[in-house]
Amino acid sequence: MSDLPRSEPSSNQLATKAQAWSALFSEPMSDLVKRYTSSVFFDKRLWQADIAGSLAHAEMLAAQAIIAPADYAAIQKGMAQITQEIEAGQFDWQLDLEDVHLNIEARLTALVGDAGKRLHTGRSRNDQVATDVRLWLRGEIDLIVELLQALQRALVEVAENNVEVILPGFTHLQVAQPVSFAHHLLAYVEMFERDAQRMLDVRKRVNVLPLGSAALAGTTYPLDRERVARTLGMEGVCQNSLDGVSDRDFAIEFSAAASLVMVHISRLSEELIIWMSQNFGFIKIADRFTTGSSIMPQKKNPDVPELARGKTGRVVGHLMGLITLMKGQPLAYNKDNQEDKEPLFDTVDTLKDTLRIFAEMVGGQINPHTGCKEGGITVNAAAMRAAAQKGYATATDLADYLVKKGLPFRDAHETVAHAVKLAAQKGVDLSELSLAELQAFNPSVADDVFAVLSLEGSLNARNTLGGTAPAQVRSQLQRHRARLG
Amino acid sequence: MSDLPRSEPSSNQLATKAQAWSALFSEPMSDLVKRYTSSVFFDKRLWQADIAGSLAHAEMLAAQAIIAPADYAAIQKGMAQITQEIEAGQFDWQLDLEDVHLNIEARLTALVGDAGKRLHTGRSRNDQVATDVRLWLRGEIDLIVELLQALQRALVEVAENNVEVILPGFTHLQVAQPVSFAHHLLAYVEMFERDAQRMLDVRKRVNVLPLGSAALAGTTYPLDRERVARTLGMEGVCQNSLDGVSDRDFAIEFSAAASLVMVHISRLSEELIIWMSQNFGFIKIADRFTTGSSIMPQKKNPDVPELARGKTGRVVGHLMGLITLMKGQPLAYNKDNQEDKEPLFDTVDTLKDTLRIFAEMVGGQINPHTGCKEGGITVNAAAMRAAAQKGYATATDLADYLVKKGLPFRDAHETVAHAVKLAAQKGVDLSELSLAELQAFNPSVADDVFAVLSLEGSLNARNTLGGTAPAQVRSQLQRHRARLG
Amino acid sequence: MSDLPRSEPSSNQLATKAQAWSALFSEPMSDLVKRYTSSVFFDKRLWQADIAGSLAHAEMLAAQAIIAPADYAAIQKGMAQITQEIEAGQFDWQLDLEDVHLNIEARLTALVGDAGKRLHTGRSRNDQVATDVRLWLRGEIDLIVELLQALQRALVEVAENNVEVILPGFTHLQVAQPVSFAHHLLAYVEMFERDAQRMLDVRKRVNVLPLGSAALAGTTYPLDRERVARTLGMEGVCQNSLDGVSDRDFAIEFSAAASLVMVHISRLSEELIIWMSQNFGFIKIADRFTTGSSIMPQKKNPDVPELARGKTGRVVGHLMGLITLMKGQPLAYNKDNQEDKEPLFDTVDTLKDTLRIFAEMVGGQINPHTGCKEGGITVNAAAMRAAAQKGYATATDLADYLVKKGLPFRDAHETVAHAVKLAAQKGVDLSELSLAELQAFNPSVADDVFAVLSLEGSLNARNTLGGTAPAQVRSQLQRHRARLG
Amino acid sequence: MSDLPRSEPSSNQLATKAQAWSALFSEPMSDLVKRYTSSVFFDKRLWQADIAGSLAHAEMLAAQAIIAPADYAAIQKGMAQITQEIEAGQFDWQLDLEDVHLNIEARLTALVGDAGKRLHTGRSRNDQVATDVRLWLRGEIDLIVELLQALQRALVEVAENNVEVILPGFTHLQVAQPVSFAHHLLAYVEMFERDAQRMLDVRKRVNVLPLGSAALAGTTYPLDRERVARTLGMEGVCQNSLDGVSDRDFAIEFSAAASLVMVHISRLSEELIIWMSQNFGFIKIADRFTTGSSIMPQKKNPDVPELARGKTGRVVGHLMGLITLMKGQPLAYNKDNQEDKEPLFDTVDTLKDTLRIFAEMVGGQINPHTGCKEGGITVNAAAMRAAAQKGYATATDLADYLVKKGLPFRDAHETVAHAVKLAAQKGVDLSELSLAELQAFNPSVADDVFAVLSLEGSLNARNTLGGTAPAQVRSQLQRHRARLG
Repeated sequence: MSDLPRSEPSSNQLATKAQAWSALFSEPMSDLVKRYTSSVFFDKRLWQADIAGSLAHAEMLAAQAIIAPADYAAIQKGMAQITQEIEAGQFDWQLDLEDVHLNIEARLTALVGDAGKRLHTGRSRNDQVATDVRLWLRGEIDLIVELLQALQRALVEVAENNVEVILPGFTHLQVAQPVSFAHHLLAYVEMFERDAQRMLDVRKRVNVLPLGSAALAGTTYPLDRERVARTLGMEGVCQNSLDGVSDRDFAIEFSAAASLVMVHISRLSEELIIWMSQNFGFIKIADRFTTGSSIMPQKKNPDVPELARGKTGRVVGHLMGLITLMKGQPLAYNKDNQEDKEPLFDTVDTLKDTLRIFAEMVGGQINPHTGCKEGGITVNAAAMRAAAQKGYATATDLADYLVKKGLPFRDAHETVAHAVKLAAQKGVDLSELSLAELQAFNPSVADDVFAVLSLEGSLNARNTLGGTAPAQVRSQLQRHRARLG
Repeated sequence: MSDLPRSEPSSNQLATKAQAWSALFSEPMSDLVKRYTSSVFFDKRLWQADIAGSLAHAEMLAAQAIIAPADYAAIQKGMAQITQEIEAGQFDWQLDLEDVHLNIEARLTALVGDAGKRLHTGRSRNDQVATDVRLWLRGEIDLIVELLQALQRALVEVAENNVEVILPGFTHLQVAQPVSFAHHLLAYVEMFERDAQRMLDVRKRVNVLPLGSAALAGTTYPLDRERVARTLGMEGVCQNSLDGVSDRDFAIEFSAAASLVMVHISRLSEELIIWMSQNFGFIKIADRFTTGSSIMPQKKNPDVPELARGKTGRVVGHLMGLITLMKGQPLAYNKDNQEDKEPLFDTVDTLKDTLRIFAEMVGGQINPHTGCKEGGITVNAAAMRAAAQKGYATATDLADYLVKKGLPFRDAHETVAHAVKLAAQKGVDLSELSLAELQAFNPSVADDVFAVLSLEGSLNARNTLGGTAPAQVRSQLQRHRARLG
Repeated sequence: MSDLPRSEPSSNQLATKAQAWSALFSEPMSDLVKRYTSSVFFDKRLWQADIAGSLAHAEMLAAQAIIAPADYAAIQKGMAQITQEIEAGQFDWQLDLEDVHLNIEARLTALVGDAGKRLHTGRSRNDQVATDVRLWLRGEIDLIVELLQALQRALVEVAENNVEVILPGFTHLQVAQPVSFAHHLLAYVEMFERDAQRMLDVRKRVNVLPLGSAALAGTTYPLDRERVARTLGMEGVCQNSLDGVSDRDFAIEFSAAASLVMVHISRLSEELIIWMSQNFGFIKIADRFTTGSSIMPQKKNPDVPELARGKTGRVVGHLMGLITLMKGQPLAYNKDNQEDKEPLFDTVDTLKDTLRIFAEMVGGQINPHTGCKEGGITVNAAAMRAAAQKGYATATDLADYLVKKGLPFRDAHETVAHAVKLAAQKGVDLSELSLAELQAFNPSVADDVFAVLSLEGSLNARNTLGGTAPAQVRSQLQRHRARLG
Repeated sequence: MSDLPRSEPSSNQLATKAQAWSALFSEPMSDLVKRYTSSVFFDKRLWQADIAGSLAHAEMLAAQAIIAPADYAAIQKGMAQITQEIEAGQFDWQLDLEDVHLNIEARLTALVGDAGKRLHTGRSRNDQVATDVRLWLRGEIDLIVELLQALQRALVEVAENNVEVILPGFTHLQVAQPVSFAHHLLAYVEMFERDAQRMLDVRKRVNVLPLGSAALAGTTYPLDRERVARTLGMEGVCQNSLDGVSDRDFAIEFSAAASLVMVHISRLSEELIIWMSQNFGFIKIADRFTTGSSIMPQKKNPDVPELARGKTGRVVGHLMGLITLMKGQPLAYNKDNQEDKEPLFDTVDTLKDTLRIFAEMVGGQINPHTGCKEGGITVNAAAMRAAAQKGYATATDLADYLVKKGLPFRDAHETVAHAVKLAAQKGVDLSELSLAELQAFNPSVADDVFAVLSLEGSLNARNTLGGTAPAQVRSQLQRHRARLG
């Protein structure tokens, strides 16, 4: 059809939104309604994805001879100029034009005439916006995965310097057993690596092309959808047009994965805050991640971990909002779906900022003069050790010692409970009981028990896969280094 | 102490945030951290409340002779100028100054010197921000209550014109019994009036003064907190300083009330959308609340109700976010709390916009030329009536008829089920069965049954308090008019 | 109509659910469907409310001569027997009869024949279940308010014994200023009293009668709904029948109030857990609220506060579930609403158990031998005091001291920051700096500064309404005692 | 150590929970506390996983010579008997023994003495419960994936019979374009297949072994954790013991995936409910999935879809509850985590029941006499067709027709809008305008336009991948059949 005579460049119906919708409408929108229904002020951040999607669509339209090569060339030229205008901050975003799509299409038509009006052939804003959001989110996921790895790297670096540093491992925030500080940090490496893997699973379902679904039923033009998918680097095409325009699973699934990242951040934050309280004093974070008080001159508050813990609520709230949004919607596209963008955008922003700041807060920054990292968390090994010596952290070791002497575990457990009771009455640690006192509980106790009751003895003894023994921790560090670089 | 010699106007420590926090800090904040921790870009909307709170505080400080009258005068003058600057858009909001409080205090000190530095006597940002948010929210609640009443008024107006219009009442979206369209609309009036009452209950707990709690423990200055409360029109003062600075119940309670408003809006929206679908065709809304399609030229979509239904998710998400935020926080103030503002602000904005637009969409706008309202929903009474005649909407009336003839209700119910079965087999309504056919089910059926089986007969018969009979509906309308004006 | 000839006692159509629904249904339900749609296994807990509601309805039907006095008498007699059967555990609840209403009505009809079949005159299960839930919830709210007061009383008792005990008040979990432990506990009294007030506000909206709304449109019988409301002690009647059967606001509003209770419980739990950790050691709770470890013989874990903190999620989840449930439902009753009960029941159970257990855990139990309370939390005042002496808790006092000497607050704040820096470098408290050292920062410092820098000096100085000075705390205790008894 | 002399079978310390925890505890638990903290009434459903995990652990202990072969044999024998007892309903579950683990271990020790006491060597309840839940959930995921496929199969079957049946495709619940009913159903097949894939991704992260993490730090025994993983069919072992006992990501991730399933179910339910309303009348579902009314004899309500829509709230609520639960928890295990089980169990139950019932409701059941499926949804093709003829469903086709005649799409769109306006004024469909009337809008319109304006013409024209043309739909059906069997 590209050889048909062209119509004269008609007036641009897209000059205002109401015109774009056609002659059916008998009254203009009020300003309040415009503000309520327009999305351009938040969806303009999709402009790059919108242009990329349009160019891939136009390239295919030309390849399929649905538009003329000259039209495609004009569209390319127009889009190049629009890109320049937006990057230079000179693009005139108009509320009247409702969204990023109509803003760009209107400008394109103003620049290149009929070719611009041909761009929308065989597509609808319904499949267009779904494509834009997926393209944009794919890129953001890639950044987030990198940031998750950077945070893991920061944790690994601090861990490498603290393999032999012993702090009390807690369960129920009660002293449980001695653990290596490195081992403790590597627990978070596991969490953030699971997050990264989860994000990559989400990515598979994000990176699928809805374009060509048109309004809801597909299109009458001989589109080559798989060509567009290849051009855009997508792994497949949506196989059902109704699903293609109405599916927002990927946004919910991403938000759920993001919520888990923030749950992990909230756990780490909680620990940092407790560790920094004066009664613990296990660590310090650099001043630039803290703030002071307008009234109390002595204060240095761990604002960044607290804010991050608080921002968990924000991201979880967005997940809840998105699920509520989709609940009970009939097929296919409904305007409700426009509400998917702001929570998604804010989730991405919150996640990226938080991960970036945590990587730096934990691991520090490279000092350009020395090439070394500086300014990460400062560890107070002595305070950690002192805390580990409270609370009978090696009681389990004594029970295991008795098991190795032949007692069934349950009997050994009971025996040690009595020993702890005595030690507590005397106000001493188990290791401070005399051999005679210990033997009174079980005659098989010998002099070698005191090595077992030391923090180092306890630590080194937990030497199976996943345990806290320094040998195990070093082996995990090697694994992570190999993986993370 | 106001007669003590003044210190020389010292350099303004508030010029940057780090200085405000004191000499303890050894390094400046990075830009990322500044952006992450600063709130000025969203909390500056509290400026009026911040200035009102500061003026009430300063007035009391002077009355208690904690500051000199001249200091108070200087603060008043400075605040007047700051108000002008902000209103004129000339105030230089600085990210470095973290929040609205420090921005205003720094400017005040720049303008009036030591008097400005004396303003923060006996208070902290912890109690200051809690006061600001409560003052601001109190005003917003008052606006929301007015908007809830305006929407009720719009519903009442449409109801007044549709008392005799019959549509099928649905349960399970199946035709149940005929109801007056006015009666249906008044169900929403009940909901929105409950919302208004709920908001007023929330207001009681919002309108309490934290100022004077200082950082967390109260203050060493002889403040008169009740004087400040009176000045600010508050109903009481927080009786415990730790609670005063850490309480965010009011934000959660408000968000829960807001979520209920949106749940009601979502229900009304769902009905409007269904009623506008071609298979129902019960109503139309004015074009300016609809949008068209970029691809389908015939479309006129109910965008506003759909968006409103979608925005329910947004508000509910904020509620969830706020609860998650507060869960498990130890006393007293933690930086997490800063995250209370954005969800609260967005909830208020969403609520106000939605209520305003719904009042206009339902009831229309006053045409300045005629003084009459125009452009509200258009009712298609014929379509409603036709729908009410499907689905055996008067079957219950037949059962009640038989009860009045002496059958126990359960037997009557069973008898009518058989009659419905016959009518369905014949493809006719109950009222289209012959008297003989009806008598075959129960011999007590007489000629007067056909009045009972008519839509009007059914409607008029439900004439007890709260029922759909026009007499009842009119009485409710009178009650609402008396209440709403 | 009560003098009309009675029909012969017909066969009981309620014997199975399908029959209750009428002859229209051509096939029986599968067992899976029965299980999926039936509610009797959870809603049978409403039986008392169901019977109370039925009796009030029957009394009114008789008073209005809609049923005969003999019918009412028979219904009373039948209900008395059913009550006995249920209380004795001999009632045969049947899944086939779907819900509590049909189970009781079927049994009633089996017991008293036609009178039972007349009970459902002028009502529907839609208004019946709404009435039942409201009656039941009203009673539960009353219990919850009592439990909230009992917990407040327990907190007040512990506070009364700890007015002079000083612990560090925290902001950001950093030592901020010394506070009275009693003052800290009274912050929670404020929260739980707000909760009680909120519950009473909810109660107003719960305690309204839907009965008489019938299926959705009201009824054709001359009901006296206000008589039923008076009989049931309700404050009013639902004014719109469509709203009466479909409104679940009260369930959501109650769940939101319950979530706030749990948020407060979670905050208190978090503090108890931190205070019990070995590095704090501020308090102990009685052994019966802790559990041990199957592996670590020394452990005594604060299980109850941890579980309570965890149960916050449960209650918040139910709130979110209920909101999601109602979002977007068209009028009037939809089966979705059946899903309101389980979350509501579990919320009530969780709240009651948690409040009861917390009152006992905090305040102890009365020893029947001594008449004294025993077994509440044990306070380690020395550990609290030691912690309060870390972290320069009296730095603000020094700043206030300088203000009283004439410095503007901002200058005083800055001066003290320098003093803290020096003290920190020397590893001493501010009170351990020499007078000369302090005077170097500001010459106005005199010997009286050391009283200001003591914990008691700081505490006593915060002597305005809501402050932590013992005088203020005692005045608050008096207020609470007067209120709570 | 297996050759050491055995101790005499000691008294069974597990006889009550307090004893299991050791001699440290000075008072027994109150009944309320027992009820509050015990989990046995819900976690006993994990018994099979618990026994499987214990047997795999014991097998490895023996292989590593940590226990004697005779001990392992005794444990096997004891567990076989316990299995029988539980299956026969004869096992005496005791609240005093707190949870499924201690109940089984206590019984084992009662049955086999010291060997039973040796079972807990090198493990803790912390890693044991995490292992149990993962094993159990893995099995449930496999069932859920099968049920998701069964539901897909049911949808495909109905689709196969309805390829040529045309219903109006909606956007915004407004008639948009004609679509094949099969195409519409296949949109749900896409959703449920994404759900299945998502579940399989979750499964990878569920199917990892925590056992061997012990309490939190690993163990002092030379465990072979990878052997246990192999025995249990798990894909790997948790690499960090602190993470192993505290990770509940898998529960949250599963709940998020389950929430998406329910969101899809809620959308399908919404459509079924709308399609069954008398004004649509597109389908019927079998009577056994509907219920009647206690008051309205004519009612047949779509209870199952409504309940399913409502149950979305339940599952989403559980997700929110689980996230709230984990937010801000410090490492490692905290008792809060016990609250993970009830929401998880209820989510699994809800999901399985819903999927099973939907597969049958959509696709019917096999009639054992005929071997054919019966009782799935009944399609009213005529009602669908009639609805598709409203609303100018082929307007886009006319625009595309004009584009193929050379008009730019935007101009064609505008032209058709005018044509729709005329048709609406005349109260006719576009296809009912005369050729002359159509040509007045654009002279290029020819007689072939009427084929384009027919429903079949429109349908067949959307013949690209993912489109609604019957050829495309058949190709998709083939793909699904090949995949699903």
